[in-house]
Amino acid sequence: MKIGFLAIGNEILHGKIQEANGPWLATFLRQYGLSLTAQVNCSDSPEDIQDSLKFLYEHCAFVICSGGLGPTPDDVTKIALANFFNKGPIQVSSQAKLVAQEHYRRFDRELPEGHGYGFLPKDFVALHNPSGFAPGLLLQEKEHLLLAAPGVPKEFRDMLMSHLPKLVALHSKEDLVFLNFRTKGIPEEKIFNELCPGLWERLATFGSVSSLPHPYSVDVGITLRGSAEELKVSESEIHDIIKNSPLKPHIWSVGLVSLEEIIIKEAAQKNLTFSFAESCTGGLCASRITNFSGSSQVFWGAVVSYDNSVKENVLGVSVDSLSQFGAVSEIVAKQMADGVRNKLNTQLSVSLTGIAGPGGGTTEKPVGTVWIGLSNGKNTKAHKFQFKGDREALKYRFSQVALFHLLDLIRDWRD
Amino acid sequence: MKIGFLAIGNEILHGKIQEANGPWLATFLRQYGLSLTAQVNCSDSPEDIQDSLKFLYEHCAFVICSGGLGPTPDDVTKIALANFFNKGPIQVSSQAKLVAQEHYRRFDRELPEGHGYGFLPKDFVALHNPSGFAPGLLLQEKEHLLLAAPGVPKEFRDMLMSHLPKLVALHSKEDLVFLNFRTKGIPEEKIFNELCPGLWERLATFGSVSSLPHPYSVDVGITLRGSAEELKVSESEIHDIIKNSPLKPHIWSVGLVSLEEIIIKEAAQKNLTFSFAESCTGGLCASRITNFSGSSQVFWGAVVSYDNSVKENVLGVSVDSLSQFGAVSEIVAKQMADGVRNKLNTQLSVSLTGIAGPGGGTTEKPVGTVWIGLSNGKNTKAHKFQFKGDREALKYRFSQVALFHLLDLIRDWRD
Repeated sequence: MKIGFLAIGNEILHGKIQEANGPWLATFLRQYGLSLTAQVNCSDSPEDIQDSLKFLYEHCAFVICSGGLGPTPDDVTKIALANFFNKGPIQVSSQAKLVAQEHYRRFDRELPEGHGYGFLPKDFVALHNPSGFAPGLLLQEKEHLLLAAPGVPKEFRDMLMSHLPKLVALHSKEDLVFLNFRTKGIPEEKIFNELCPGLWERLATFGSVSSLPHPYSVDVGITLRGSAEELKVSESEIHDIIKNSPLKPHIWSVGLVSLEEIIIKEAAQKNLTFSFAESCTGGLCASRITNFSGSSQVFWGAVVSYDNSVKENVLGVSVDSLSQFGAVSEIVAKQMADGVRNKLNTQLSVSLTGIAGPGGGTTEKPVGTVWIGLSNGKNTKAHKFQFKGDREALKYRFSQVALFHLLDLIRDWRD
Repeated sequence: MKIGFLAIGNEILHGKIQEANGPWLATFLRQYGLSLTAQVNCSDSPEDIQDSLKFLYEHCAFVICSGGLGPTPDDVTKIALANFFNKGPIQVSSQAKLVAQEHYRRFDRELPEGHGYGFLPKDFVALHNPSGFAPGLLLQEKEHLLLAAPGVPKEFRDMLMSHLPKLVALHSKEDLVFLNFRTKGIPEEKIFNELCPGLWERLATFGSVSSLPHPYSVDVGITLRGSAEELKVSESEIHDIIKNSPLKPHIWSVGLVSLEEIIIKEAAQKNLTFSFAESCTGGLCASRITNFSGSSQVFWGAVVSYDNSVKENVLGVSVDSLSQFGAVSEIVAKQMADGVRNKLNTQLSVSLTGIAGPGGGTTEKPVGTVWIGLSNGKNTKAHKFQFKGDREALKYRFSQVALFHLLDLIRDWRD
């Protein structure tokens, strides 16, 4: 199934908003063993929309589009679709009115009489919008499949998550399972060339294999199709293959849940609290964890000790250690971890001290060096890592390694 | 000048890397009074690249493309360009070899004999790459203008910044000035409809006007074209218009430098140090400031006091204030600001305590409420704000207001 994506909106082309639905969709489609064939971003003009649809349908049978479904005059997607598919003019649809009325009732409001949300091009169906007012649009014809969703990222995502699985199932006539093995600490090319040669080919006998790299982590995915019984057998065989492969110790999760959410969930299950002492990451670990609700139950706080005086005065790092070994050293990382754990009274703590660059590197401690300190109240240790990248990329990589070590601390915890 | 952008790469369509060059380019073009007419993301196949170029040249005279200029077999951009423009096969170019040799010498390496970087389609010119190995490509013909740059964001940006101004100047045959007035605290539609009706139209008599909204901030830009003398006169007239308009008190900067960089620069000029006490933003203010080098000179650290125990034990917030007024209150914001300033021994401090949601809101203190505390050692005050958005958007808006208040603290500082 070849899929094209069309992002509609002047504000995208003028740099006012960043097009985020295409990248999300491309990742989302992995679960179905699918990818995008092409993406076009075009203006709010009906002619541009029609030209873009023409281009995409030359390469794809299914086009997903986003934007231009609202009630203001620059929302012209419906008109462009009606023109392109020769289904115009748009007309009142009782089905669309029902869908829109339901959205309004959710917010205790009434759909105004004659509102644009009740109009559709001929042969189109209105789609339920789980998180907003504007219904989506669906056209299913022999040659063309089209799904139009709102441009607001949350509405776009919720609508695709609620409607795409059914569409894919309908058009593939088979059940589908997506297995996603999340690995850490080993680069993509090493997994398949050095650690597990032949693994990709072996997995590919079951279905479509894909790999998605993140900093310090790679997702290995397999999309399976078949009857429910076939899927059950394949799934269990794949789990066996992975369990007996050298990849096993690198897997930290199966599924799509984020690292931050897994940390929060597993810490909560064990009634654990944790804290960070951050130097080079400047608060990024704390900020990442607090992006998720539920974090207040397990994350008590952090000390960002950017200046050495804060390492000394707030975290209790010794002046001697700082002057003898420097801030980026094993002993300072350990003292930072101990200091924040004691000060904030948490069971676990993680510290980071390193060099994010571009300045500050030396031959002995080049830019990209980081020490990660770990304490669980029984013992305190520190590990050294070396990464490449610019300042922001390094901060993110440092935080990623620190969070993976926090997850290990949580999993290793014994009362 | 109608400009199309083509992002080439399977990894974009497969969701492995996020296409970031298009959004950057769209914003960058504002300076020249230009915008993108369309963007296409296509695969690494020469046929797809050629089809996409055909589509874009139906709408634009100038196409900028990114990706596929490296030395590996999936880097097929040059071949596709040679086919599309009928300039093939690609051949050794002494000019391209010279450019590539220079890039290699910068890293103390020699360009290998017969390396692909030395090959070009006929009539193309190799462009200097300020930050990588692969030369860019330029074709200037009567009907078609084409610039191909590497896909790596830093190389793409540096190449565009170094070559696009000249190209624009060449094709406009006039000098160009971009004035960017950065405002805060007033929404885009209010600026032009309520605060300064007629301002847009008045500015438009000088050149092309644009506005770019950010959280809690709007950039108003004017692109001027003309002779050097004309530009000087217009520039001074525009500064007068703005100076005498109600927009004046909202302008915090003229230019394109970020808020974080301005804070760092102005604090350094006054020899000031600052710290944050962050609750609801969970370290985001600290992380944003430390994304920029130079921050270590002025930012000493932060306490992320997510749990109330940290507010009490580390920042010295009184138990009475917390129980009587709650963590999200004026008095707690003030005590947090005082506490972190004293503890970390900085001249200035900013605190944040609020509700980022989705849970935790009440009728009196709904999700989106935030108190910002400010201390300069002489007096401590706090301001309340109310925003809309999901958790991450709220965290960012809160941090944005806090940073703007920090800038005011720095500017108001008198020894």
